[in-house]
Amino acid sequence: MNPVLPQRDTAAEPERGERALVRRIAARLAASAAPPGSGSSAATESAGVPFGDDMAAIEGTDSALLWTTDTLMDGIDFDSRQHAWRDIGRKAIAVSLSDCAAMAVRPVSALCNLVLCENMTADDALELVGGAVDFAARWGCAIVGGDTNSWRQPTVISFTVAARACADLAPVRRDGAQPGDRIFITGRVGGSILGRHMTFEPRVEQALAIARRVRVHAQIDVSDGVAIDLSRVCEASRCGAVLDERDVRLAIHADAERLAAQDGVAALEHALYDGEDFELLCVLPADVPDRALNELGLLAIGRIVAEPGLWMRHADGARRVVEARGWEHFR
Amino acid sequence: MNPVLPQRDTAAEPERGERALVRRIAARLAASAAPPGSGSSAATESAGVPFGDDMAAIEGTDSALLWTTDTLMDGIDFDSRQHAWRDIGRKAIAVSLSDCAAMAVRPVSALCNLVLCENMTADDALELVGGAVDFAARWGCAIVGGDTNSWRQPTVISFTVAARACADLAPVRRDGAQPGDRIFITGRVGGSILGRHMTFEPRVEQALAIARRVRVHAQIDVSDGVAIDLSRVCEASRCGAVLDERDVRLAIHADAERLAAQDGVAALEHALYDGEDFELLCVLPADVPDRALNELGLLAIGRIVAEPGLWMRHADGARRVVEARGWEHFR
Repeated sequence: MNPVLPQRDTAAEPERGERALVRRIAARLAASAAPPGSGSSAATESAGVPFGDDMAAIEGTDSALLWTTDTLMDGIDFDSRQHAWRDIGRKAIAVSLSDCAAMAVRPVSALCNLVLCENMTADDALELVGGAVDFAARWGCAIVGGDTNSWRQPTVISFTVAARACADLAPVRRDGAQPGDRIFITGRVGGSILGRHMTFEPRVEQALAIARRVRVHAQIDVSDGVAIDLSRVCEASRCGAVLDERDVRLAIHADAERLAAQDGVAALEHALYDGEDFELLCVLPADVPDRALNELGLLAIGRIVAEPGLWMRHADGARRVVEARGWEHFR
Repeated sequence: MNPVLPQRDTAAEPERGERALVRRIAARLAASAAPPGSGSSAATESAGVPFGDDMAAIEGTDSALLWTTDTLMDGIDFDSRQHAWRDIGRKAIAVSLSDCAAMAVRPVSALCNLVLCENMTADDALELVGGAVDFAARWGCAIVGGDTNSWRQPTVISFTVAARACADLAPVRRDGAQPGDRIFITGRVGGSILGRHMTFEPRVEQALAIARRVRVHAQIDVSDGVAIDLSRVCEASRCGAVLDERDVRLAIHADAERLAAQDGVAALEHALYDGEDFELLCVLPADVPDRALNELGLLAIGRIVAEPGLWMRHADGARRVVEARGWEHFR
């Protein structure tokens, strides 16, 4: 769930209308979600979870129960000509479970909205549902209802997931990054289009382990790409970030290298701009001991700075701007 | 939300594959939603709200917080060539608010999933969102987040609404009807396609007034038609119903008469089979005083019987089967 910025942004159209539109929609919703009589500073805040975070509080007075929703469309987020319906169902709920990881909360239940293409068989539909049901069950998350429709257009799947904060852990927001903080990632990134975008593991347990071990200032899941998602953390936290090229190079996934060999785009570019890795970007205080970082499997990639913006410190010492853009599949 | 039966059923295709499919999906979900180790009798029950009711419990241990979700598609549930986007947004959330009325619970917040047709303007999209935001605000229900996408196909809109049970009222289920109970409706029905399907008022306040005044054995909102929705109450309650033709005739909306004059289908048929009236069907004990019924504005239409099935007692004294089918717009 990323209502403040679009889920995806084409490399070819970094500033097309959709992005501006989603900002306007988010502003409209944020204004309406403000409690009556609240001042403008509270207008984007809801029960300890600011508007536009990975999840929202269900009740304004209680941030312990959160929810998130994501929509996947055939031909854009998956391709029913090449992906199995069971795997499509798995991915459809996994993207929302990844939002739970981003906030370090435990999924409890889900609803599904299906708009099925009429050329699907009943067995296809049950495979889709079964893939989601079985995957969510690994976290004790049951699909408790939904709405099923069919039409002649491509299939559209939405899952909405509710999650509960652990008693000992407040939900981790994306707006707490501070200058001097270090930026980490839970795994290597780039080239997910080669297959991992269908098979990724939401980092729910890892998020809880991190939050129990260290104080997490800010966190987001990499749904749309390291550059765009880090820029969201920076925007929410009113700060900037400098990535370290040498560190980022150590966080390039082998799939990014394979894809680079195919398409001629540098593996570093894939690591920065490809979406759907669903690793976590964690912003931690600078004083977290190396031992904790190693045991948690965190890869350092940069630092938070006071000046708003996104840069990379290159191996040659130069600091250059990194575009806050992401990747769009299949389009 | 009607996962156990499809949202719509064409008159021309009363037993087509979709209905069987939705039953199979519901069975798959109900099995997965059962708490671990529960017996088969508990397999469709979740925290005092049975699987397949108008709303589901968000957490299995607490039925105070419920949720529901509904999807509307351009060309099926609305027609963007003739309806204003503001009215479309209003309807999109109103159908879920009507589920809140059916359970006699208060809406608290909502999420929206938008898949916008690329030919929509930004102003169209904001009209859509604004229509939903302003309508939901009447119940203090804020839209706190969502997911926005666009594509070249027709627009798809889903809203998910969370609601809280009042401290003094358990959610009203659809499975408590008992033989001898009387069946009422909160307003006249039929012919909503002439316009009311876009402008109906969810009966939230009326549902609370009814539940505070009398003991409601079962309730559902008329989303797909009196016949199909009453059959859902009967199926959940393992009983049947006999409608009284004279009473049903008194509950025919003037729009049903107008539509009958246009299409030659009897107004009584429109009252039984047209969808999207969003009045409440209430099943009450037989001993509720007439004064209470009158003050609550309830129209009697029949009685619950032990034998499963749906019938109408005609003016000539004959009892004939009523088909458990509903209506589908625009298809």
